[in-house]
Amino acid sequence: MHQTTPEMQQCIENCQECHKVCLHKAMQHCLEMGGRHVEANHMRLMLNCAEICQTSLNFMLSGSPQHKLTCGVCAEVCEACAQSCEAVGDMDECVAACRKCAESCRAMASM
Amino acid sequence: MHQTTPEMQQCIENCQECHKVCLHKAMQHCLEMGGRHVEANHMRLMLNCAEICQTSLNFMLSGSPQHKLTCGVCAEVCEACAQSCEAVGDMDECVAACRKCAESCRAMASM
Amino acid sequence: MHQTTPEMQQCIENCQECHKVCLHKAMQHCLEMGGRHVEANHMRLMLNCAEICQTSLNFMLSGSPQHKLTCGVCAEVCEACAQSCEAVGDMDECVAACRKCAESCRAMASM
Amino acid sequence: MHQTTPEMQQCIENCQECHKVCLHKAMQHCLEMGGRHVEANHMRLMLNCAEICQTSLNFMLSGSPQHKLTCGVCAEVCEACAQSCEAVGDMDECVAACRKCAESCRAMASM
Repeated sequence: MHQTTPEMQQCIENCQECHKVCLHKAMQHCLEMGGRHVEANHMRLMLNCAEICQTSLNFMLSGSPQHKLTCGVCAEVCEACAQSCEAVGDMDECVAACRKCAESCRAMASM
Repeated sequence: MHQTTPEMQQCIENCQECHKVCLHKAMQHCLEMGGRHVEANHMRLMLNCAEICQTSLNFMLSGSPQHKLTCGVCAEVCEACAQSCEAVGDMDECVAACRKCAESCRAMASM
Repeated sequence: MHQTTPEMQQCIENCQECHKVCLHKAMQHCLEMGGRHVEANHMRLMLNCAEICQTSLNFMLSGSPQHKLTCGVCAEVCEACAQSCEAVGDMDECVAACRKCAESCRAMASM
Repeated sequence: MHQTTPEMQQCIENCQECHKVCLHKAMQHCLEMGGRHVEANHMRLMLNCAEICQTSLNFMLSGSPQHKLTCGVCAEVCEACAQSCEAVGDMDECVAACRKCAESCRAMASM
């Protein structure tokens, strides 16, 4: 892709992966497990995280200068989601995807 | 809005309303209530319904000829969501919004 | 809707309206007019604005505490879009919807 | 991911890729090039294609049985977008991503 730095390219991939993992786990793993996995704040964070990753991804793909703002929000929601997944337990793939995405989004936001 | 028939205008409003009610009820009412309200198939339908309403809305707003296809899918998902809400109970506002949206989407799909 | 203040209720409606107007105008008015209406930065702002309104709307509907962050970004994108629409001209409905949405999003962000 | 066949796994990846390529090319290549690249029907198809890929992806990730319906629509929009890209020319990456996505979505729709 043209006009896209390697750092943004990596952030785009991290947002895609985090969106995929959070949405899939929320809708299949958490809803099937029930119990603490469907606790309101946890499910909310999982689904919010998937959505803001999608939005940040779309802002970066469209070449928007405001991608810094969406990436800043994305980093905060990903970090909160990672913490919620750690507290729930049994969500290692999600924790890893959220942390990786948060780190690259933070870097995009501060450039 | 130009180039938009009164029927499509109404369908756009019904999709906006159904998206709003389903997402709000899923994320606040169902997640807070727990029990049968967070049963996997029900939550999935509520969230899928909100998403396909958003997509059909966006296709209509963009003047896409393929809005007939998205409206056709939207009608089916709304109908399934209405039935799930009836089975769960205590979801009258959702049932009404889904049925109204399904009806106008079916009409758009068959034009 | 329960747990939603009148201010948030209004902000939800303003985001819905701004999303609708921006997407419709971008995809129908601007693309049909061509010329300065399809200048890259203008079209990008119109479509980014529609998307962040949708995301902020969804965060508010889901009862997410991070709606303050998405509303903060939404206010900035709406303001930039309003300015771009004023510069292009012939986009009064869009300017009004963006300004109204920006104002209520700014209020949500600062609560 | 659990409960996901290799065919669906591949379709999920094809939708991700097609969404990424169409949105990026529409918002950066087409808008920068102008001329026939921003012709209304072409831009509309590019953006509609990105959106329905996103929706089909989300239905598959959520384990929705209605993914067959969204994939059916996705296949039609991708095919139309591929044809529009061929007519415009200079859009080979998009044509390839759309054709690959259309093929796997058609397969998902007919299962």
